[in-house]
Formats: sequence, C-alpha cells, structure tokens
Amino acid sequence: MDVLKKNWFSESCEMWPGSTFSFEVKEELYHEKSEYQDIQVFDTISLGRVLVLDGIIQCTQKDEFSYQEMISFLPLCCHKNPEKVLIVGGGDGGVARDVSKHPKVKEVVQVEIDAKVIEVSKKYLPFMAVGFESKKLTLHVGDGFEFMKNHSNEFDVIITDSSDPIGPAVSLFQENYFALMKTALKPNGIVCSQAGTFWDSMSLVKNTLRFCKNQFPKAAYATTSVPTYPCGQIGFVIGSLDESVKFDEPITRFTLQEIKNMNLKYYNKEIHKAAFALPSFVTSEIDS
Amino acid sequence: MDVLKKNWFSESCEMWPGSTFSFEVKEELYHEKSEYQDIQVFDTISLGRVLVLDGIIQCTQKDEFSYQEMISFLPLCCHKNPEKVLIVGGGDGGVARDVSKHPKVKEVVQVEIDAKVIEVSKKYLPFMAVGFESKKLTLHVGDGFEFMKNHSNEFDVIITDSSDPIGPAVSLFQENYFALMKTALKPNGIVCSQAGTFWDSMSLVKNTLRFCKNQFPKAAYATTSVPTYPCGQIGFVIGSLDESVKFDEPITRFTLQEIKNMNLKYYNKEIHKAAFALPSFVTSEIDS
Repeated sequence: MDVLKKNWFSESCEMWPGSTFSFEVKEELYHEKSEYQDIQVFDTISLGRVLVLDGIIQCTQKDEFSYQEMISFLPLCCHKNPEKVLIVGGGDGGVARDVSKHPKVKEVVQVEIDAKVIEVSKKYLPFMAVGFESKKLTLHVGDGFEFMKNHSNEFDVIITDSSDPIGPAVSLFQENYFALMKTALKPNGIVCSQAGTFWDSMSLVKNTLRFCKNQFPKAAYATTSVPTYPCGQIGFVIGSLDESVKFDEPITRFTLQEIKNMNLKYYNKEIHKAAFALPSFVTSEIDS
Repeated sequence: MDVLKKNWFSESCEMWPGSTFSFEVKEELYHEKSEYQDIQVFDTISLGRVLVLDGIIQCTQKDEFSYQEMISFLPLCCHKNPEKVLIVGGGDGGVARDVSKHPKVKEVVQVEIDAKVIEVSKKYLPFMAVGFESKKLTLHVGDGFEFMKNHSNEFDVIITDSSDPIGPAVSLFQENYFALMKTALKPNGIVCSQAGTFWDSMSLVKNTLRFCKNQFPKAAYATTSVPTYPCGQIGFVIGSLDESVKFDEPITRFTLQEIKNMNLKYYNKEIHKAAFALPSFVTSEIDS
C-alpha cells in the first residue's frame, strides 16, 4: 500500500468516508481561521491554485469553470429576462464573474458571509475574484438568509453558491430557505442551488430537490462534471415560479461566437440540455 | 498536510502526476503478477470490490455499471440489428454481461489476452464475471489484434474494453487497430473504444478520435461519469460505417420497463443523447 508523501494535501470529510482525493502542493500560500471557517489556499503541481475551506476543496484553477458556468447559466438561460440577480455565497468571485457576462443581466447583488474568503480570493485567486470588479455588482458581507428577509419581490434569479451542508452553509439546504427565496423572487423567478453528488449524497440530492419541489411549481436536478469534487460530479437543484418553463430547453441559446466572446469554457446549449439527463438509478430514486 | 494511513491504497500513474485517488482497504483479496500485468483485488470500505491492474483502478463494485453499460449500449443502440458482437478485452466480464442483455444480440465473441484476469474475476468479482455465463458468449484467450486478422466481415459491433494505453493495451489505441476493426466489421458496422478523459488526456482523446475518423465515415466522442476513474470522467470513441447514423439518436429506445427488466442502472435513452454533448473547451479542441 502506498503512503502519501509529506507535500501532499488529502481531502478528508465525514460526508465521504473510505476514499479521498489528494494533490501535490507546491506551496501553501495562505492558512488562517476566519470567524466562520478554516481557509487554505495552495499552489499545486497539477491543479493550479486551490481554495480549501474546512478541509474541503472548494475550487481549483483547473476545473472551477465547469461549476461556475453551469450554476450561473443554467438558471439565467432558462429565464426570459434575468435583469436582476442575487448571489448567495460565492465568496471566491467566480459566479459573479460568469453571471455578469450574461448580456441580459443588468444588476448583480451578492451576499457572502465571510469577508476573509473575499479578501483571500482577491489576493490569491484573481482568475475568479475578477468577478468582484464587475460594474454590475453590489457586494454585501452578511448572511444571505437574513438579507432576503428584507428583500421581497426583487430578484429574477437567485443563485446559491454554498459550501456543503456542514458548517456555515447548513441553513441554505433547508426547506425554509427555499420558501424565503420564493418571497425574494419576482414573478416567474428562478432559483439554482448547489445540491451535491448523486453518487455519494443521494439523500442530500433527494431532500434538496424535495424542498424545492414543495415551494416551486417546477423543479429539477441538473449535473456537471468537476474532477476535483468528490466523485467528479456535482449537481444543482433548479426551481422556477414560471410553470411553462422547460429547464432542458434554454430560452437564451448562445451561438458559438457568443460562447467564444464570453470566454465560456464549459457551458453551451447542448451541455445545458444534457445536464438534465440523469442515470437510471438517479431518476428511479428521484421519482420515487 | 495529511499523510494517508497504512491501510489505504493510492493510485499512482505517470499519466496523471500531481494528484491521486485513494481508498481504504478492508482486505487485499488477491495480488499476483500475470504474464501481462500486476493484478490486485481489494475489498474496500466505500467501493465494494475493486480490481487494480498495474496500479490503476479498472473497476469498482460501486460504479462499474456506468462504464460497462455505456460502452455497450451506446454502439448497440445505434445499430439497426446488432446480432453479432465482438468484445476485445473486458476480462472482468462486465461488458459481456451487459452486451448479452440487448434483445437483438444473438452471438457474442470475446477475446481477452490475460487468462488470469478472467480467473480472478470469476473468483472475486462475480457481479461482473456473471457475464461469462451468458449462453450467447464464446470466450477466447488471446490477442484481439491477432484474432481480427483472421475474422473479416463478421461482426456488427466491436467493443474495445481496454486498460489505458500503457502496458498490454497500447496497440488498441493506434490507427492500424481502427483499420483492422473496419475489416472485421460487416457493412454498417459500429465500433466503440475506451478513449480516456478530456480533463487530463486531451491528446489521447484527440488522437483516438482522429484515428477513428480517418477510418470511419462517422465518428464521435461520448462521455460518462465514473467516480473512481481519474477526473471522474471517461469517454468512448464510436465510429460507424453507416453514413446515415446519428449517434445521439439511438435506434433502439428502451422503455422504462425494459430498463428495469434488464437491470440497467445507468443507461437510458436520455443519457445516451446527453453523452454526446461536450463542454465548449472540448468541442473547440476536437473540431480544431
């Protein structure tokens, strides 16, 4: 059996016992505990810069674009006119970067609970933190849950880019959170939340989808490939107040040239549709 | 930094430096060198039984069905009448198991080079080796490349379930292999080969697809999610002699009841179509 060497970082988490992903570290650029969580940034041999919160990989320079583009463009391209968008979480700036690219988006409001994550990302993860420079963006440091209590009937799209439901993000995976988002939405609004992997976290997927279905007339789970997340797969729960929405038929359909102009490395209209096709063992669980 | 404990197995391979996947071992059930490769079978905490060849995970009980079903049903369901199928490799029996399920398949011929892999799979991996019990199957131990030289105009579908292109499988990733398969096919025949991950092995993906395109009038790359393969993603190159084929529109479209009856856990007609939708960075590489 191999024993990993000293300059490797291994992800370990109670959610996924018995297997782990590890990467070789060039340099630990940052390591401090914030008010909310343990924050690490690494420079690595094979993944570029990596952000780790409470021991869990949040994003790597190699593959972050898959997650960020999909959580942004799946809901945006299903909405007729996504002018005003709320981002809850997303302290690395990646979602703000991608949401701002959508031509119909006029105004982006972001609420991130941990100012340290923003600060660290600006310093060490400029390829994502560039999102904070968008002229469309107003950034608040605070609790997204509390923020929405004072903002009703205001947003076309709400994107919840959270860490996993242990630690500061627990409240973002509960049914009252979906109920609250509904009040913060304008008519025909759409929400999209990180919702775990069907390979290892089926109960999380099912619960999050059920909470969304209880609050929204239309809801679905969509999937994408992210090598450095557990199982290399993560999904999103998307819910719409517009009963006529067909999630797998985007309203905004970018041309190849538009994809290039926006520098979208993952998203396109074919991958949008494909994201809603799920393996048989998943559909039978979800529909049960 | 964490150091993994003694009872963990870490995959290490020259193809993917700088990151690795590891799993906790309950028991090493088998470890011997065959004439061709180093063979290990583990019982594990989180993945069930695991087959490792030359230090690389080949299949785990947790997720093998994704790979096996997709490499089998993508080509089978694109062929009008896939009566006679050749499997090259596939010594664990998983592809034989799934190919045999297709109602139009009458005869399956398999050529695996390493008798030890078959023997070990029968003993330790019965959930896959059950494929060897199919009455449709004729199993040969030998070199698939050499076998095809003596079998022309014989098969409707050829599936190449090989390990990665280091070690005994190198010859199965070269253009003359695709040329040889073409001669072994009947008119309108289809081939499908393991072809690596676009996340880490883009040159392998591009080369394999190019070799296939050079030999077949229609060719494409399709993807599936397999958590325990590098990057959690692997793909297939599929080529057809039938110019009218539309790979993403399967000819055989199983009903939900048929999927259940065949115990297909991954494949369905929606996931078939979705497998051909690729991220923007992949299509721009492939089309270049």
